[in-house]
Amino acid sequence: MNYQAIREACYEANRKLPATGLVDLTFGNVSVLDPDSGIFAIKPSGVDYDALTPENMVLLDLDGRIVEGELRPSSDTPTHRRLYCAWADQGVVSVVHTHSRNAVAFAQSGRDLPCLGTTHCDYFNGPVPVTRIMSVNEVDGDYEWETGNVIVERFADLDPTEIPAILVQHHGPFAWGTSANKSVENARALEIVADMALKSLALNPDLTGAPDHLRNKHFFRKHGASAYYGQR
Amino acid sequence: MNYQAIREACYEANRKLPATGLVDLTFGNVSVLDPDSGIFAIKPSGVDYDALTPENMVLLDLDGRIVEGELRPSSDTPTHRRLYCAWADQGVVSVVHTHSRNAVAFAQSGRDLPCLGTTHCDYFNGPVPVTRIMSVNEVDGDYEWETGNVIVERFADLDPTEIPAILVQHHGPFAWGTSANKSVENARALEIVADMALKSLALNPDLTGAPDHLRNKHFFRKHGASAYYGQR
Amino acid sequence: MNYQAIREACYEANRKLPATGLVDLTFGNVSVLDPDSGIFAIKPSGVDYDALTPENMVLLDLDGRIVEGELRPSSDTPTHRRLYCAWADQGVVSVVHTHSRNAVAFAQSGRDLPCLGTTHCDYFNGPVPVTRIMSVNEVDGDYEWETGNVIVERFADLDPTEIPAILVQHHGPFAWGTSANKSVENARALEIVADMALKSLALNPDLTGAPDHLRNKHFFRKHGASAYYGQR
Amino acid sequence: MNYQAIREACYEANRKLPATGLVDLTFGNVSVLDPDSGIFAIKPSGVDYDALTPENMVLLDLDGRIVEGELRPSSDTPTHRRLYCAWADQGVVSVVHTHSRNAVAFAQSGRDLPCLGTTHCDYFNGPVPVTRIMSVNEVDGDYEWETGNVIVERFADLDPTEIPAILVQHHGPFAWGTSANKSVENARALEIVADMALKSLALNPDLTGAPDHLRNKHFFRKHGASAYYGQR
Repeated sequence: MNYQAIREACYEANRKLPATGLVDLTFGNVSVLDPDSGIFAIKPSGVDYDALTPENMVLLDLDGRIVEGELRPSSDTPTHRRLYCAWADQGVVSVVHTHSRNAVAFAQSGRDLPCLGTTHCDYFNGPVPVTRIMSVNEVDGDYEWETGNVIVERFADLDPTEIPAILVQHHGPFAWGTSANKSVENARALEIVADMALKSLALNPDLTGAPDHLRNKHFFRKHGASAYYGQR
Repeated sequence: MNYQAIREACYEANRKLPATGLVDLTFGNVSVLDPDSGIFAIKPSGVDYDALTPENMVLLDLDGRIVEGELRPSSDTPTHRRLYCAWADQGVVSVVHTHSRNAVAFAQSGRDLPCLGTTHCDYFNGPVPVTRIMSVNEVDGDYEWETGNVIVERFADLDPTEIPAILVQHHGPFAWGTSANKSVENARALEIVADMALKSLALNPDLTGAPDHLRNKHFFRKHGASAYYGQR
Repeated sequence: MNYQAIREACYEANRKLPATGLVDLTFGNVSVLDPDSGIFAIKPSGVDYDALTPENMVLLDLDGRIVEGELRPSSDTPTHRRLYCAWADQGVVSVVHTHSRNAVAFAQSGRDLPCLGTTHCDYFNGPVPVTRIMSVNEVDGDYEWETGNVIVERFADLDPTEIPAILVQHHGPFAWGTSANKSVENARALEIVADMALKSLALNPDLTGAPDHLRNKHFFRKHGASAYYGQR
Repeated sequence: MNYQAIREACYEANRKLPATGLVDLTFGNVSVLDPDSGIFAIKPSGVDYDALTPENMVLLDLDGRIVEGELRPSSDTPTHRRLYCAWADQGVVSVVHTHSRNAVAFAQSGRDLPCLGTTHCDYFNGPVPVTRIMSVNEVDGDYEWETGNVIVERFADLDPTEIPAILVQHHGPFAWGTSANKSVENARALEIVADMALKSLALNPDLTGAPDHLRNKHFFRKHGASAYYGQR
């Protein structure tokens, strides 16, 4: 039963990607975890978005074994799996990977995406960090799992529920959330604020960020116990 | 009766926002004031644009009391209200807030949007100013009302009918007008001229602005007693 | 009879403007001349593109007198008229004015649009020039006619059939051609090559232009007696 | 029989160009080769994309003689032909030429497109090179054939199956592939990674490229005997 729910949520979130402008060609995938069973659904590898069906989503367990599905899962599957192993107990039940262009620009230039204004603060309570460059051993070894490892390493002193995205250096963004819709929304917000930051830095390359009191105000206006944005 | 008119004007203007390219996700809201009754309609908070109806607009008076409506009003409501208190007697009967990307770039970089050409002069008779950074007390206090205060403060020596928009620093633009259509048109013009300014400053970072005689000519070609643009 | 032909060509060309991405809001107009009668049709001022009909185009003679039409013609009409007076005998029978964003960036920065590659050379046999800044007397006098004068002045040593566009400084582009379709195509090509030039100059601010032999080759591959592009 | 297959593949690939955002106006063409007969189909010159039919594609042999077709072939035909002569035996059976804007920016600035991240590595195993400037004799001689010659010259030490695209200086990109779909996909990937590179270089003009081990990993994850991306 739960399998069907994550299968459909995964299908719908993947289908939504091209219309959001987040993915070109087939550069993007979403997974959705059922935290009770420890099973997650993910897009099959290299399949066009309009050829997707709920039935061709691939289901795996957290050891990486395929539970259901005829097709090969996304080649990025071990990265998604690594993030669930680290953060499922903090409510991370969906992961999105894209090559959205503005976020990629920060990843390729090796820069954290700075928190320059309230649009950013509404989603990310601080800069969106970039990982270190992966070593030869990491890339030549279990590359996609190691990608997850450098992400988790970068979050050693960060809270994945307050900063639900990262930039893998020379690669691109991963975002996550408490539902498939939330993770896609976070990926969209990331791409939007990366566009704003690119333009802001063109006007003033020395910008560092919005003041702390403004950042905190906006993040906690929308998140946590004292949030007052939206309907209750 | 008038309530129904502002409710519908408000609904139509908010529905128009996504198609104009001014808003991403739910980052934008429009309000419309009935100046006779001192009642204004505004978008409910955090509701998707395609879930809006004339009936779920929220109606408030200028003291911030909800007059009609089941939903919570936009969290930015006190900012809109502050502007009506200051400028309703100058004909400001609609306010638009967006996070449109090019205007946000100027807000985030803390720069006035300079008046570089006639497209700008057709709408804004001078630079579109940026506010000062808000203090800790202002942000931690009645934040959205204080946002209105720093806007009004910035206009101490400016005429809101000649420059119908502002950039709140590290946040984004507010625009206004003599009708819902006019306020949305001013917000669109702001985003367009911010795009043009970004590109012009990329070609020449030292640009300051169009000559005064050209600016005056274009603004008053479209506005005021001697306007001759459009049909009479 | 001819009136009906220019009326319809004018209507169709104006209607086409929003879909080309050349105009925002109502910032653009096309006129079409019947060179035999010296009568031209032009868009009415400040009317939305989807409210246009062949019947509400305005017809004027080359002295600026309205021959047919209930509405006021575009406020830019004297500029169009000035260009026909100068260049109708060289085959210029349609003029387009827009505020297309990339071309405006060059106009606002006071820079000629350099000829950086073959896309440019296919349409413009050299840089697209920018006018000088207009004087106080010119702006305060018969402004729109004087705008035409500074354009014609700038072309003193240039051939309007080889460079069918100009940038009015702090304002925007005018383009022209041997038919309504050709003038709109030239305006589109201008906007495209301005986009390419903005990006090229971002990569290398010191670019000056494509070599003369390449420029000549491409222009005359498409234009003149020895052209061999397209079907004959 | 084969003629009909390349005619239809050529028609479909050319029709697809405007929707991909790769071509403005009529700036683009695709050809498709039947390697057995040495006959290729190409778009007719200067014809609008929506006026194309399988029947008006032009068929030529590798000596440039028209085999079938009433219309003149694309003026760029000799360039396509030159590439087939050089690389058909390495599996190049389709060539695409566009003036896509981001790729043109690199061509116009005379810079190789650097390999800054995994999106690039997924398609091109190294920088996409720019040709030298063509000489007066080359441009005034058999220009389009000579364009092919400078492309082939630039690949003297490069493998066209590992880097399936080039930037002709002051002109624009050519891409190729093992099928019409693949060559168009390569042209799209080129335009996407050029956009990412423009933005990355704006953030850090000194970027040189992704590390070799990451580049190799990603290219060979998708290409060659040990590829494991997609379905088998």
